[in-house]
Amino acid sequence: MRFPHRHLLGIEGLSQAQINTILDLADTYVEQNRSPNKKSDVLRGKTVVNLFFENSTRTRTSFELAAKRLGGDAINMSVDGSSVKKGETLLDTATTLNAMHLDVLVVRHPESGAVKLLADKVNCAVISGGDGAHEHPTQALLDALTIRRNKGRLDGLTVTICGDILHSRVARSNIQLLNIMGARVRVVAPPTLLPRAIGELSVEVHHDMATGLKDADIVMMLRLQLERMQGQFVPSVREYYRFFGLDYEKLAAAKPDALIMHPGPMNRGVEIDSLVADDINRSVILQQVELGVAVRMACLDLLTQHGRNDPA
Amino acid sequence: MRFPHRHLLGIEGLSQAQINTILDLADTYVEQNRSPNKKSDVLRGKTVVNLFFENSTRTRTSFELAAKRLGGDAINMSVDGSSVKKGETLLDTATTLNAMHLDVLVVRHPESGAVKLLADKVNCAVISGGDGAHEHPTQALLDALTIRRNKGRLDGLTVTICGDILHSRVARSNIQLLNIMGARVRVVAPPTLLPRAIGELSVEVHHDMATGLKDADIVMMLRLQLERMQGQFVPSVREYYRFFGLDYEKLAAAKPDALIMHPGPMNRGVEIDSLVADDINRSVILQQVELGVAVRMACLDLLTQHGRNDPA
Amino acid sequence: MRFPHRHLLGIEGLSQAQINTILDLADTYVEQNRSPNKKSDVLRGKTVVNLFFENSTRTRTSFELAAKRLGGDAINMSVDGSSVKKGETLLDTATTLNAMHLDVLVVRHPESGAVKLLADKVNCAVISGGDGAHEHPTQALLDALTIRRNKGRLDGLTVTICGDILHSRVARSNIQLLNIMGARVRVVAPPTLLPRAIGELSVEVHHDMATGLKDADIVMMLRLQLERMQGQFVPSVREYYRFFGLDYEKLAAAKPDALIMHPGPMNRGVEIDSLVADDINRSVILQQVELGVAVRMACLDLLTQHGRNDPA
Repeated sequence: MRFPHRHLLGIEGLSQAQINTILDLADTYVEQNRSPNKKSDVLRGKTVVNLFFENSTRTRTSFELAAKRLGGDAINMSVDGSSVKKGETLLDTATTLNAMHLDVLVVRHPESGAVKLLADKVNCAVISGGDGAHEHPTQALLDALTIRRNKGRLDGLTVTICGDILHSRVARSNIQLLNIMGARVRVVAPPTLLPRAIGELSVEVHHDMATGLKDADIVMMLRLQLERMQGQFVPSVREYYRFFGLDYEKLAAAKPDALIMHPGPMNRGVEIDSLVADDINRSVILQQVELGVAVRMACLDLLTQHGRNDPA
Repeated sequence: MRFPHRHLLGIEGLSQAQINTILDLADTYVEQNRSPNKKSDVLRGKTVVNLFFENSTRTRTSFELAAKRLGGDAINMSVDGSSVKKGETLLDTATTLNAMHLDVLVVRHPESGAVKLLADKVNCAVISGGDGAHEHPTQALLDALTIRRNKGRLDGLTVTICGDILHSRVARSNIQLLNIMGARVRVVAPPTLLPRAIGELSVEVHHDMATGLKDADIVMMLRLQLERMQGQFVPSVREYYRFFGLDYEKLAAAKPDALIMHPGPMNRGVEIDSLVADDINRSVILQQVELGVAVRMACLDLLTQHGRNDPA
Repeated sequence: MRFPHRHLLGIEGLSQAQINTILDLADTYVEQNRSPNKKSDVLRGKTVVNLFFENSTRTRTSFELAAKRLGGDAINMSVDGSSVKKGETLLDTATTLNAMHLDVLVVRHPESGAVKLLADKVNCAVISGGDGAHEHPTQALLDALTIRRNKGRLDGLTVTICGDILHSRVARSNIQLLNIMGARVRVVAPPTLLPRAIGELSVEVHHDMATGLKDADIVMMLRLQLERMQGQFVPSVREYYRFFGLDYEKLAAAKPDALIMHPGPMNRGVEIDSLVADDINRSVILQQVELGVAVRMACLDLLTQHGRNDPA
């Protein structure tokens, strides 16, 4: 199946079949990453640029590894020290890079919609590495792959997403993907950490962990993004942990074999207890990181197939 | 033709034939960069280090791409976080890198002459990525390639360079290259943005856009480098744009098919109107970026041919 | 000889035979680095991550070059701009990277013992790039290779290490390695720049350059690490140079063919006179840099042989 989109800017607009195509291909890359020779030539002669307007260890490294393991050239560019300081606009930065004949531009930006704006101006493929509180599609895809590999399916599962929904592009992308794939999605958060438009999303809203986690197959914790909270509501970390931090007591409401997930980086003792985070039977947090590289390899592969397989 | 120089520190000292050698080779790399497989093995086993004492998105990325597309290993080093903070001298940094058996060291430095100082101490090839207000040779070469590909030649053309000549190594390198290649060069700038020694360069000096642009084949705008103006003369941006910013009204004085160029990053609305900058018929600003990678590939190729083609 | 350790965290615990294995292999990589094609495929398909919690131009670049010249993929991660700012712990950073299927993790950290802590949590090989005032094993190995190539042996030589022993992981690793290899080790320093436990190490302690350097085969200077001196004793640079800075007058006490060494970056005029540092007959400071890349290639090679040579 040819991937019909030029870019991957969000989960919105993807079909069940397209998501399965990505996940199926990612499964094969999980094997490549686990083998002694992790390198192939799928992206040989291709250029991938990571353009990050926000810092991120794991996402940038994950994409860089993905590109290099496919044999592509990966170039990093972070805004610190870039032309943005000299007053160049976002779009000029993008069109300048585009003029260098990139194949894929991976962009992370603190403002929602910035990646789309940029994607409209370039002819290379663009993958969103997260934009503001909008979308973070590869995170949702790697979460889906993690669930699928552990539970065998996505449809029919009850997935509870807990915590700082308001600032979370991870939550937003996951809610969409899980609905597309036929899962039931719940969110648990204090009213102050929910977006106003939560009613428009297909989720069941809870303000209490006991009811939100009841019989859940998947417990997906979110990082409390204190750095994004200005003036408005800043919760006391101690109070927050008491009511919304995942510990074994609260986890008891979920199914006995419920998976524990977190996109990282974790605030241990804030949104999640260390013992739960490191639970070797139920926590799949490090597996999420592993599968993240494979999912990004699949996305890079699919978005560059056009140029590769067609007569030049 | 064997390239006779060990380093590329400036345009000064190059002959017409040598410049043509670089541009001819760059033409072939333009094709490589436009093909589905952008990678060759010309620099396989070679090491290129980008040593940047000044930030630059586009120049660093352009050199990094050039090295990687030729199959070389590219390593970036910016002064932020480097030994310079620990008090190591410029020359110790250079000789240390040199001891690691580099093939090419690309250096950008805020002080004029610093790159030459360093080049005298190492036995790898050195390419200047710009030093102070002195020279920026690869920018002049890519500008020349852009003109040659669009106009078929350089000799006999009238090229007008406008704006902040005082702080511009781009202007300095272009003035030299264009004179070597037989073009007529004019500059347009307020007296405060001209170097005192402008009389020693082979240029026609104008203080007025109307006369400076009259019948020009090429209009080359420069970035107003406000960050380099300390105390001295700092123009009001509004006044500057009124008298020296390129808009369609001022452009009308040039030939109808005059090319619009800018080395980037642009200050839109300061030295150039956005509509003019994005003029799809006459602006070649993004083409300059594209050809920049090819020109840098040609320079890397030529400066490493010695070790490659001779018996070891 | 199969290298018996999974990690290289320090010199402590290595045998004479193991050290010779590393140095012998490094000798072959010196040749590779001096040849026109510096690239091999020993690490093809392997991933090396440089995780630096402290800035370092030369060490990071040396490891990056080493990995790339062996055909591996090298990825840099510095703490600036990393998850550490978002409150992620050292161990979470390490286990996250480990989940991405690294082969080697090179770690530099300002605190002694941090690298060991991290190595216990990952299943990739870990090489210490220096931790606090504890160990810097690859520096001691490259110093040993430099001595061996110049003097033909290590055993029986008198090596004097001078200066800021207190803050120096380089001194600590060298003292251990030189003792293992049968050299006689002396240190020269003011009492305030000696660790309290100096008596537990097998060294002869001097507070005077004249006696400390007497008949020495090797004079190893250390960088005065003023940035690590807080409150405590901060020497006057002028006084320090007078009593402990290496100039030709003090050097006269050593053997006429004594080698002058320094791990860099140097404070010229503080711990070493510029003329002595640049002495073309006796200073091997730049050769140390050269051999450093080869030693790191040997370490990367040895620590990844397990996965390469065994049936998968």
